[in-house]
Amino acid sequence: MATERMRIGIAGLGSVGGALLTLLGERPDFAPAGRTAAISGVSARTRGKPRAGDISNLPWWDDPVALAASPDNDVFVELIGGADGPAKAAVEAALRLGKPVVTANKALIAVHGAELAALAEANNAPLLFEAAVMGGTPAVKMLREAMVGDHVEAVAGILNGTCNYILTQMEETGRAFADVLAEAQRLGYAEADPTTDVGGFDAGHKITILAALAFGCAPNFAAAQIEVIDQVELLDIHLAHDLGYRIRLIAQAVRVGEGIAVSVTPALVPLGHPLAETKGPLNALFIEGRGIGRIFIQGPGAGGGPTAAAVAADIADVMTGAARPVFQSPAASLKPFVGVDARQASGRAYLRLMVKDEPGVIAAITETLAEAHVSIDSFLQKPVHDAGGVPIVLTTHATPESALLEAVRRIGALPALLEAPRMLRLARI
Amino acid sequence: MATERMRIGIAGLGSVGGALLTLLGERPDFAPAGRTAAISGVSARTRGKPRAGDISNLPWWDDPVALAASPDNDVFVELIGGADGPAKAAVEAALRLGKPVVTANKALIAVHGAELAALAEANNAPLLFEAAVMGGTPAVKMLREAMVGDHVEAVAGILNGTCNYILTQMEETGRAFADVLAEAQRLGYAEADPTTDVGGFDAGHKITILAALAFGCAPNFAAAQIEVIDQVELLDIHLAHDLGYRIRLIAQAVRVGEGIAVSVTPALVPLGHPLAETKGPLNALFIEGRGIGRIFIQGPGAGGGPTAAAVAADIADVMTGAARPVFQSPAASLKPFVGVDARQASGRAYLRLMVKDEPGVIAAITETLAEAHVSIDSFLQKPVHDAGGVPIVLTTHATPESALLEAVRRIGALPALLEAPRMLRLARI
Repeated sequence: MATERMRIGIAGLGSVGGALLTLLGERPDFAPAGRTAAISGVSARTRGKPRAGDISNLPWWDDPVALAASPDNDVFVELIGGADGPAKAAVEAALRLGKPVVTANKALIAVHGAELAALAEANNAPLLFEAAVMGGTPAVKMLREAMVGDHVEAVAGILNGTCNYILTQMEETGRAFADVLAEAQRLGYAEADPTTDVGGFDAGHKITILAALAFGCAPNFAAAQIEVIDQVELLDIHLAHDLGYRIRLIAQAVRVGEGIAVSVTPALVPLGHPLAETKGPLNALFIEGRGIGRIFIQGPGAGGGPTAAAVAADIADVMTGAARPVFQSPAASLKPFVGVDARQASGRAYLRLMVKDEPGVIAAITETLAEAHVSIDSFLQKPVHDAGGVPIVLTTHATPESALLEAVRRIGALPALLEAPRMLRLARI
Repeated sequence: MATERMRIGIAGLGSVGGALLTLLGERPDFAPAGRTAAISGVSARTRGKPRAGDISNLPWWDDPVALAASPDNDVFVELIGGADGPAKAAVEAALRLGKPVVTANKALIAVHGAELAALAEANNAPLLFEAAVMGGTPAVKMLREAMVGDHVEAVAGILNGTCNYILTQMEETGRAFADVLAEAQRLGYAEADPTTDVGGFDAGHKITILAALAFGCAPNFAAAQIEVIDQVELLDIHLAHDLGYRIRLIAQAVRVGEGIAVSVTPALVPLGHPLAETKGPLNALFIEGRGIGRIFIQGPGAGGGPTAAAVAADIADVMTGAARPVFQSPAASLKPFVGVDARQASGRAYLRLMVKDEPGVIAAITETLAEAHVSIDSFLQKPVHDAGGVPIVLTTHATPESALLEAVRRIGALPALLEAPRMLRLARI
């Protein structure tokens, strides 16, 4: 094992970058493969800003691309963020010179992963991104390295801690989505602009990356089907609970025929299931392999400390000199991503109907479902609600998507309906 | 990345070896780091025995040590088992020649890990053993690679599927230990000689390996404190459940002062806790890191298919050319293992007392506990049991071990006691 110091250039000094400065500063003995690490240069938007680690003695770079290309560092750590702009330019500059890159940037890898993998492999430079998915919980390493002897059938889990925190708080405190989101923003658990998290983009980037690792296909964020949680009302959370379920934002990638269905969608998970019991900002993932069976992993999905530890683990991997494809197979042999509509396959659904309090309504609904060939698994009628309507919730057996949509259309046309039917899917896990 | 074939020699063709033959045979495209793999030689006790994979076209070796030393293979896979004998001799022969070794042998690594690590590192040969712990679930990779940027405080989990299957079956079918064990043996879930599993040796070997990886100390199986599950009676399983707990065989390694306490012991885990909900032959592990927080991983802990997939993942690691210490730090800098009695620290306990059905008994017990400074957390008196005795169970608050043992001694001396008190510990998780 080599004994010289490995010089680290870091671009982006937010919470993860600050925590990484602290981690490397506190551990001068950090030498996981026989080499120690030293920070040889930093870059950020603002030099003078107060941050976790002290940068006054570190060489400063105004331009992250120049830092990435500098011969003063052996590894480039990109913590700037964003799919394009300086993050992409800096990563490309480093890879072009054959310099190893470690990044926490999920958007960059989900959107440009295939071309960056080709660039990295052409220049024999590792491109590592453990910190991009599930923070300190090593989902990337598990899929890329531990499952390599197996054939992955599906991955499914909770990949956005902010959404899971909001859903958990709605259930536990009985407050509405907007109210909990505003509080999360005040407490710093959600960004001022929450679009990335509650819009499903963050979970979509992460599941896109995991799909590429699991199935050996080029990452293709554009093909991910994303539904968001702001459609989840408090009433649905309570009614789902009455039926024995909890609502979670489930990100999943599954083989369907010759293609891969990648989706992010709120879905009902049975109480007691490990994903239903994953609460607050935790993340969790199931990996289903043909030979290995099901592996479940759960842990903190964000935060400066955990994410910086994942970056440090990637730096350690660089030190080992390991040469491995960026995704499951070399970039040139990544299969083109054949996106499949997850909803093509049949699935189970939850329907919530608000109906008039009058005789014959239940009969009309159940007849309509029967005519559409949708069969009921559970049915619950609740006492009259605020607005004078009667809430009815039901779950269906597995039904082709087309039949389900037709049934919802017909039910929506019934005169007894006070508002449009609400539909959520049951998680296929 | 190199493109020549990697030639694999395999010694030991039991269920894991057979599954590995099948896995590599079915996947001629297995080339996780740009190289394909080919089996170049096999060795086992009996050549003609029927097994999963066809070996008629493979070069056969009567002597595994000769196979390990042969220039006809680039990697030696040891699946013979046993801490000493031919397994150790063969692994040493390969390492001495600088040949990478992949093994599933937990006893070998737990007992001789430090000297083998020194031999491997002196010869620049990887020594990998993912398959030794939790079968296909990558606990070794997580601790050795993903946690390397963090400071591990504790690892705790369920590492023996046979014991967990027996405890689960006792609870679910209401049958006694010996009865369930006999059935597990008939079904092939337990060995004809069950000592390795139910004697706690298997879990002890595994937690010894995880402790070395987590804390950078030399593995020292002799220092593991092992208590076994055959002391767990059906009555305790039921009474623990009444108090809100499930009994599990918990393997754990925890920093205590300057030392490490490594133990395997039956313990009560609260219902709903992920380890209480780990049922049947599943394995599960918590890793607690200072920066990362808690990571939980659960999956199949044994079986030919999952374990062979872990061996294949290690072969893939060899292909990458990664150079990494065998344990957390280079063999020469592994700290000597300072064993600490896990029970030195204070903990909570479960006591089951069988007493005479007469007035004043409860008062005598609670007074005795109070005199010994043991405070009660929950208390349950059940109706008269078969033999005319009244079962009483209680859990204590955290109590120093010495006070607990003194209380048990005094209670055991009370005239109302029909049998010796039974004590189990509550898991510290």
